[in-house]
This record gives sequence, structure tokens and C-alpha cells, in this order.
Amino acid sequence: MSLASTFESLAVELAEIARLCYARGWALGTSGNFSAVVQRQPLRLAITSSGLDKGLLEAGHIVEIDEHGRVMQGEGKPSAEATLHLAIVRSRGAGAVLHTHSIWSTILSDAVTDATGGLPIEGYEMSKGLDGVRTHERREWLPVVENTQDWTAAAPRIETKLREHPEVHGFLIRRHGLYTWGTDLAAAKRQLEILEFLFEAMGRKRGIQWQA
Amino acid sequence: MSLASTFESLAVELAEIARLCYARGWALGTSGNFSAVVQRQPLRLAITSSGLDKGLLEAGHIVEIDEHGRVMQGEGKPSAEATLHLAIVRSRGAGAVLHTHSIWSTILSDAVTDATGGLPIEGYEMSKGLDGVRTHERREWLPVVENTQDWTAAAPRIETKLREHPEVHGFLIRRHGLYTWGTDLAAAKRQLEILEFLFEAMGRKRGIQWQA
Amino acid sequence: MSLASTFESLAVELAEIARLCYARGWALGTSGNFSAVVQRQPLRLAITSSGLDKGLLEAGHIVEIDEHGRVMQGEGKPSAEATLHLAIVRSRGAGAVLHTHSIWSTILSDAVTDATGGLPIEGYEMSKGLDGVRTHERREWLPVVENTQDWTAAAPRIETKLREHPEVHGFLIRRHGLYTWGTDLAAAKRQLEILEFLFEAMGRKRGIQWQA
Amino acid sequence: MSLASTFESLAVELAEIARLCYARGWALGTSGNFSAVVQRQPLRLAITSSGLDKGLLEAGHIVEIDEHGRVMQGEGKPSAEATLHLAIVRSRGAGAVLHTHSIWSTILSDAVTDATGGLPIEGYEMSKGLDGVRTHERREWLPVVENTQDWTAAAPRIETKLREHPEVHGFLIRRHGLYTWGTDLAAAKRQLEILEFLFEAMGRKRGIQWQA
Repeated sequence: MSLASTFESLAVELAEIARLCYARGWALGTSGNFSAVVQRQPLRLAITSSGLDKGLLEAGHIVEIDEHGRVMQGEGKPSAEATLHLAIVRSRGAGAVLHTHSIWSTILSDAVTDATGGLPIEGYEMSKGLDGVRTHERREWLPVVENTQDWTAAAPRIETKLREHPEVHGFLIRRHGLYTWGTDLAAAKRQLEILEFLFEAMGRKRGIQWQA
Repeated sequence: MSLASTFESLAVELAEIARLCYARGWALGTSGNFSAVVQRQPLRLAITSSGLDKGLLEAGHIVEIDEHGRVMQGEGKPSAEATLHLAIVRSRGAGAVLHTHSIWSTILSDAVTDATGGLPIEGYEMSKGLDGVRTHERREWLPVVENTQDWTAAAPRIETKLREHPEVHGFLIRRHGLYTWGTDLAAAKRQLEILEFLFEAMGRKRGIQWQA
Repeated sequence: MSLASTFESLAVELAEIARLCYARGWALGTSGNFSAVVQRQPLRLAITSSGLDKGLLEAGHIVEIDEHGRVMQGEGKPSAEATLHLAIVRSRGAGAVLHTHSIWSTILSDAVTDATGGLPIEGYEMSKGLDGVRTHERREWLPVVENTQDWTAAAPRIETKLREHPEVHGFLIRRHGLYTWGTDLAAAKRQLEILEFLFEAMGRKRGIQWQA
Repeated sequence: MSLASTFESLAVELAEIARLCYARGWALGTSGNFSAVVQRQPLRLAITSSGLDKGLLEAGHIVEIDEHGRVMQGEGKPSAEATLHLAIVRSRGAGAVLHTHSIWSTILSDAVTDATGGLPIEGYEMSKGLDGVRTHERREWLPVVENTQDWTAAAPRIETKLREHPEVHGFLIRRHGLYTWGTDLAAAKRQLEILEFLFEAMGRKRGIQWQA
């Protein structure tokens, strides 16, 4: 497939996944951003433009950026968080990156963290759907990073953290939602659904009273 | 665009947003009302008629009113709360006003208020989607006003409060829901989604137990 | 309109409302039943057959019964609770009766009752959508009756209670859901939505912790 | 109907029920699996392939297996849990088996169990929709079995437990979801909806505070 047609077909898929996330309440307002790798040498990323209603997103709202975040194709302005997408693609070899902003990821990122400042997830069968996980006995852990408005400064620190923790399947930004990824969009979407399921299960479980 | 066609196209958009809010559970029964400015000099407002099922709302159920709330075009009776819509348009220069009646806005308006009688919202990235907000560190605050059945008497007090607090993005009526607005319907809808997200996140967060 | 065509058009509307309630989770499995008056002298009621999946209900699944619950038209067997529908139509002059079985009505019927054995609802603007209510200051009260498998024996007691309390807009059966009604199906549907909203708001409110 | 056409029509129904469960959040990621008996002598089961997105499932993703779990028809690999489906069909004479992985079944399987290690359900009218139940006074009980990654070893123990408890309508795997069944797919789907309703009602009820 030519690069142009790769970009165009990824743009269609990204718009579809953006509308799906909006419909589930994971990308309300103008929140959330989504990307997929068009090519690696040199790096080209198809990514949602900033400031748009994800429920109305069309393929024409996707732009192609280079490794410095410069727009190479399409109309629009990528989010300041495009630097995070690039950092994840570089440090993980990911083919697709999804950032959602759900109720449960917002709540858990703010409150349910362990001494290391991360969110532990343990014992759930659902975690077997995460990339490379083969048993529910595996202990998952998601780093929680502080929110900022200066992603250019923060992205290198996050890239370092991701290289130090090759086992993590995503990370949370405090009161700001989730970043996860996959080898392609289908794998990233599966991992997103699984993490959101786990957040909801863990959040709701804390809401119930154990005394019968 | 002529005034007549402006009214007609706004009526189509208002009916659409009413059905969307109904589908989300934000305008059940006959609750909720929605308006948009047709022209400013003299003021003309397109607004939903009172007493209708929002899930079945069509453009023909929208009326045009003048600054005194008198029907200038269309069949139907505007809600008594039309005076609030007019007060918001005057004091804020808003182009569209949305009043919804969701579960979470009803609960939070009743219970989670600070010493000043308002609802504080702080530290959430999502608040950056509110008009003019550039950082999650901004402290939002929504006034909570008492419910009444005499909006003609109450509207001037609310209009005064809105002029005194130019920074607020909406207000709650106790056990009665939310009013928010925007320069146009798309901006008002975005602000509505963001506030509803924040209400749900804050309400659910209070429902969970922090001990792991 | 002839009686035959009245029955047929009511059957279409009843099937539609049954599918809507199913989609909202208010009539899962084979729960819920729905009726509307075809004529009053002698009484004829169009009512859903028993034991069917409400998500698949069609007009052909509605039967017409007389005042003794005997099938006069259509194929199928009315629920044993048809006696309750008849009792409500007689004691209230209702034109339509809706019985739903939602999560929140099930929970509240079991737990949140006052000294009189009923569910008090007070101060919610949404209650203004209930038939004849003009202010949120009105105190609503829903009787909670014990569940039974012998509705033939229980219906007269409920009919008496409804005559003694002409102000109530519905009643709950413990751990079994809601009965409400209206002059016609549209009015009954509106009242149903309002009561379900109030149940959910009251239930969720009890789930949150008031300390900020 | 010939066996081939039985398999094909069951495959269409199984794909439909898989997509429905996905849409309800009961089979996210690649979780969940669903089967129906094609014939009993010798046993042939139509069952969903492993590792697929249930939201995109089509009839072509269903395979036919024999009593040893070997694929007899269709392309794909059945889940390791196919041995559980076979154990249920043998011990219960079920015509269809549904395994879902919902939020509430995950939470309740982990936390709300009695001294016998099972989940008691009592007093709910909704339980009358379970196969053979005629009164809400019946006490239901669902065994909770420990999760494992070795279903070949675990299936015989579960089959024994099901033979010892002919009254149970399903079982939970800890932090892994629900298995239920029925004489055919429609009956199994009804029982699934009823159990999920009961889990949600019981879970939410524990989340509310009884003090008014």
C-alpha cells in the first residue's frame, strides 16, 4: 500500500475510533486524542487535530505529523500532547496510541494509588487481554504521572519512565485520563477496553459495602 | 442568511440537541429547555416550547420569542424559565443557552456545596474545555441558586449574580439541574458535556471508599 | 375510530413502549407488563402477554381482556398481574398502566421507606412532571406493598389503598418494581420516566459521601 | 433441518448474542464465549473462536467442536474454556451455554459470598424468570469457583459440583464472570439477563447508605 493510501485508511480508522470513544463517554467535549504510525523511517504519525468534537470527527480531521510534530499532510493543528504520542511510539515501538478521558480513569488516577505512585491491578482474569499477559495472577501496575500544561518539557521524563518500565501497558495522568497503545489500532483498542473495564470494576468495587 | 431561515435552521439544531439530551437522560419527562439567539437588535430567541417530550421534539416545536418572552413565530408556549434564558443572553452575550436536568447535577446541586453556597471544581484537566480556560489549575465555581416557581421574580436576581461573576460558566438550581451557555450551540453543547462529565466524576468519586 | 382499530393501534404503541423499557433495562428477561384501555363500558384492556422477551415484543403479542381478565381478542395469556392493571384502571380512571422492574425501583422498594411503609419524595423539581403537580415543594409519597404470588387475593387490598390515597402517582412492590399510570400511554410514559429519574437520583445520592 | 443448516443458523444466532453482550459491556476486549448444541449423539457444539473482538463477531467466527473439543467444522481455535461448555452440556443437558464477563459479576464473585463460598440471592421477584422458579421466596445460590488457567484440570471438578447441585442456574468464576445456560439460546439469554440484573441490583444496593 502506498504511504498516501496508508495515511488515508488510518485516518478513516482513527475517526471511527474517536467517534466510538465519544459514544462511550471516554472523549467528551474536545478531550482525547488518537494516533497511528504511517511509517517509521522517517517517522510519520496520523493523529487527530486538536479542539474538535470527537463525536463529529471525520477522516478529514486527521493530520500527518513528523517526528518533531510538524504537520506534513492535512489541515489542522495537532494537540500539544502529540509529543506524548511520539514519545510512546519511540519508546515502545507502538503502532497506535490512544488517549481517553473517562470518568473512572479520572477518578482512579486521583485517588487509588499505592506507595510508588502507581495504580496496582491484580488478580483479574480480564488482564489476560493485555498484550503478552498469560495469567490472571500477573500483577499489573500503571504509573500515574502529574498533569501539566507543558508537555514539551514533560514528554522526555515520561519517555524515560516508559523505557525503565517495559512491562507497563499504559499510564494515567492525574485527573486527566489514560494513555495506552498497541502494535496496531485493533490491538490498542482491545487494550483500551480492558483497562477501562478494570478501572470501572475497581472503582465500583470500592463503592460497595462488604457487610452483607 | 435571512432571519426566517436563521430561525428555521436554529429550530432544527435545537430539536436535535433536545433529542440528544433526552437520549442521555438529561431531559427526561418534559424537563429541560434550550434556546439560541436569532438576532440581537431587537432581541429574538428561538426556544423550545414547554411541556413536550424532548425525545420526540421536532423543529416545529420551537418558537421565536422577543425580549419580553412574547411568541413572535411558531406554535406553542415557552416555558416560564424563558425569562432565565433572556437574562443569560443579556448578561453574558451568549448565543445559545442549554438547561438540562441530569441525575448528577440534581444530586450535586443539593449536597456538595461550599461555604459560599456554590459548587467548587478544581484540578480537573477536563475543565480546560470550558470557554477561556487554559489550565487545569484554574478553580471553577458554579453558583447554586434556590429553586422557585416564580422565575419572573427570580430572573433579575440571577441576572445580577451573573454580572457580578463574569467568570462562571454555568449555574445550578437546587434539585433542578444546570444552566450553561456558549457563543453558539456547538460551544454551549461542548460546555454542557464538560460540566456533566465533571459532575459525574465528582459525584462518583464521593461514592468510592479510599481505603484500598 | 372503531374498537378494532383502537385495539390494533394501542397494540402497536404498547409493543413500542415495551421495547423501549427493555432497552433501558426496565423490563429485562420477561419482566414488566403494560396495558391501555380500549373501551370503558364494558371495560376492555389491551395488555402484554405473559412470559415474552420484551425486547422482541410485537403488536401481535398484545391481547385484549375483559374486566374479569378473560382474553377477548388475540393469542396469548395475560400475566397474573393483569388483575392489578384492572384494579388501577377501575380505582384511578387510568387510560394506561405501566409496570416496570428497574434496578433502582427494586432497590428503593426494599430499603428506603419511612415509618408508614412508603417512599417519600420531596423537593425535586422533576416531580412537577407528575400528573397535577404544580410545585417542587409538594411532598410525594409512594406506597410500598409486599410482593406475593397471589395477585387475585392481593388486588382488592391494593385497589382499596389506591382509593384511600387518591394523591399517589404510583406504587412499588417490594423487590419487584413500579406500577404507574396516566390518562393515556404518553402521560403514563412521562410519569414513568419521572419516577425512574427520581428513584435513580435518590438511590445514587445515598451512595455518595457528604464530606468533601 | 439438516445438521449443516443447524450449525449455520446457530452460528448466526451465536454471533448475534456475542455482539449484544459486547454492546452491553459483558464481553469487552476478547472476553466471553458462547455455545449451542448442534446435536447430542455424538455431541457437536457450535462455539465462538478464541481471541476475537466480540463486537465484530460474525457467523464465520463460530466453529463446531466434538466432545473432545476438536474442531470439526469452520476456521478458528476454540477457547481453552470450551471444556467448561462441554462439562455444562453433559451435566445439565443444556442446549446453550453463555459465559459473560461483566463488571458486576466480576465484583460480586470476588466479594459477596457466604460461608459456603457461594453467592446467595433471595427474595427478588426477578428470580422467577430463572428456569423452573415459581416464587420470589425461593433462595437462589450460585457457586463461586476459583479462577485458573488450567481448565482441562478444573472442568471435571466443576462438572461434579454441577451434578451435586442440580438446582443451580449458573456459577461464577472468581474475578472472571458468569456461566449460565438454558434449553436453547433464547432461554439461556433470558437467564443471563436475569442474573446480570440481580448482580447489579445486589451490587448497587450495597453501595447505598441506609440512613435517610
